[in-house]
Amino acid sequence: MDDPVLLTGAEGRVGQAILSDLSAEYEWRLLDRDPPTRDTDHEFVVADITDEEAVREAVEGVGAIVHLAGDPRPEAPWNSVLSNNIDGTRNVLEAAVTEGVEKVVFASSNHAVGAYETDERTPDMYRPSDDYRLDGTELPRPSNLYGVSKATGEVLGRYYHDEHGLSVVCVRIGNLTKNHPPKDYERGQAMWLSHRDCAHLFDRCLQADYDYEIVYGISDNDRKYYSIENAREVLGYDPQDNSAEFANAEC
Amino acid sequence: MDDPVLLTGAEGRVGQAILSDLSAEYEWRLLDRDPPTRDTDHEFVVADITDEEAVREAVEGVGAIVHLAGDPRPEAPWNSVLSNNIDGTRNVLEAAVTEGVEKVVFASSNHAVGAYETDERTPDMYRPSDDYRLDGTELPRPSNLYGVSKATGEVLGRYYHDEHGLSVVCVRIGNLTKNHPPKDYERGQAMWLSHRDCAHLFDRCLQADYDYEIVYGISDNDRKYYSIENAREVLGYDPQDNSAEFANAEC
Repeated sequence: MDDPVLLTGAEGRVGQAILSDLSAEYEWRLLDRDPPTRDTDHEFVVADITDEEAVREAVEGVGAIVHLAGDPRPEAPWNSVLSNNIDGTRNVLEAAVTEGVEKVVFASSNHAVGAYETDERTPDMYRPSDDYRLDGTELPRPSNLYGVSKATGEVLGRYYHDEHGLSVVCVRIGNLTKNHPPKDYERGQAMWLSHRDCAHLFDRCLQADYDYEIVYGISDNDRKYYSIENAREVLGYDPQDNSAEFANAEC
Repeated sequence: MDDPVLLTGAEGRVGQAILSDLSAEYEWRLLDRDPPTRDTDHEFVVADITDEEAVREAVEGVGAIVHLAGDPRPEAPWNSVLSNNIDGTRNVLEAAVTEGVEKVVFASSNHAVGAYETDERTPDMYRPSDDYRLDGTELPRPSNLYGVSKATGEVLGRYYHDEHGLSVVCVRIGNLTKNHPPKDYERGQAMWLSHRDCAHLFDRCLQADYDYEIVYGISDNDRKYYSIENAREVLGYDPQDNSAEFANAEC
């Protein structure tokens, strides 16, 4: 990609995982609500994602957008996710259309489908022997209002694709942790996403051609209950990690 | 149902269709943003659906809610549907939980799935011989931002059911017209909903037992591309009308 790539929410955990491996691979334009907390060689825009005009200016001249900005707290209150996550995502998609950007990678979340984890299914669904799978064709079932806001971002992406031809991929990100999977937490091991798999996945989202897709963003964990087949097929995702390869990750 | 039923957006077209047949069947508490434009025997609350406290007060003591209020325009701008339709619906669901209401009937829309009507499928899908069907298990594909807001209302309903045990049915309302189906408009004939079928359907939504459901609200039209099987099975919906029985409705 020759044009710059806008990375919103660049200072967050997912943004830093992406930049740790892909800093030199793209001409990044970073955006965050607060000024950078560490040195960066990249252009840095300080703007609130709810500021329609500032977002439009930040999008000017980029070839693609990785949209991570928003309130990341699963327990975030409604007014915050309504504004930061729902209205903010709409600002990004609208700006993309206005400025002729062709591709938007949207950070959705496992919380968009968290309520599939019913008392009847858990903890069996977190274990390697269980073959229950969500694959992205199921209706949203959020486990909190944050998850509602992410499901809404997916619907907005669908609309902007159908109506305006924007390429949109929604990545339902699992449990991103550095170095090793969460300990003593079966669910987190089932949906673990390693830093290098995270960076590789978002790289594939920027490189591949697609119309509108929903994919799960997790490593190739033995415990997985999210299918990664669509990510493999559509994006060429080829994860290297598996939470089972770490001590304390067995059943 | 012994307790009153709150009807939000009571002055709108759907509200009037419901009241025309069911005025005497329930103890209605009507709510609208503006004062009533005609005489009514029912309690009438003037309140804006975006006013959290006023909505909570209106919900106090009711046994069920039929939630129709919102900006009904398919071309409504984002800020209006964000506030009136998305935030407004969340206010109603939150108030229902706070006040211990057990059942909410949510007026969704055909526009939540309007983008399935692609150039390749139309106009064939509007014709009796075509067997393409949407049945409510498909992912939302809104045709406008109004449709995005209705799909979001459905997701909110799913969350409030899963998290709080509220019974929620989302009715994707078709093309409601009085007396006869739209003329020279195949799409409108395919998704026609007669006034008496509309009233009967919402009556069934108030009477039946369910957890969370998405149903299509149309008459039993030969031209239909929305399945009404789920409405029949879950609600006992038994429509009496069919747009094909009117002149100018043939292929």
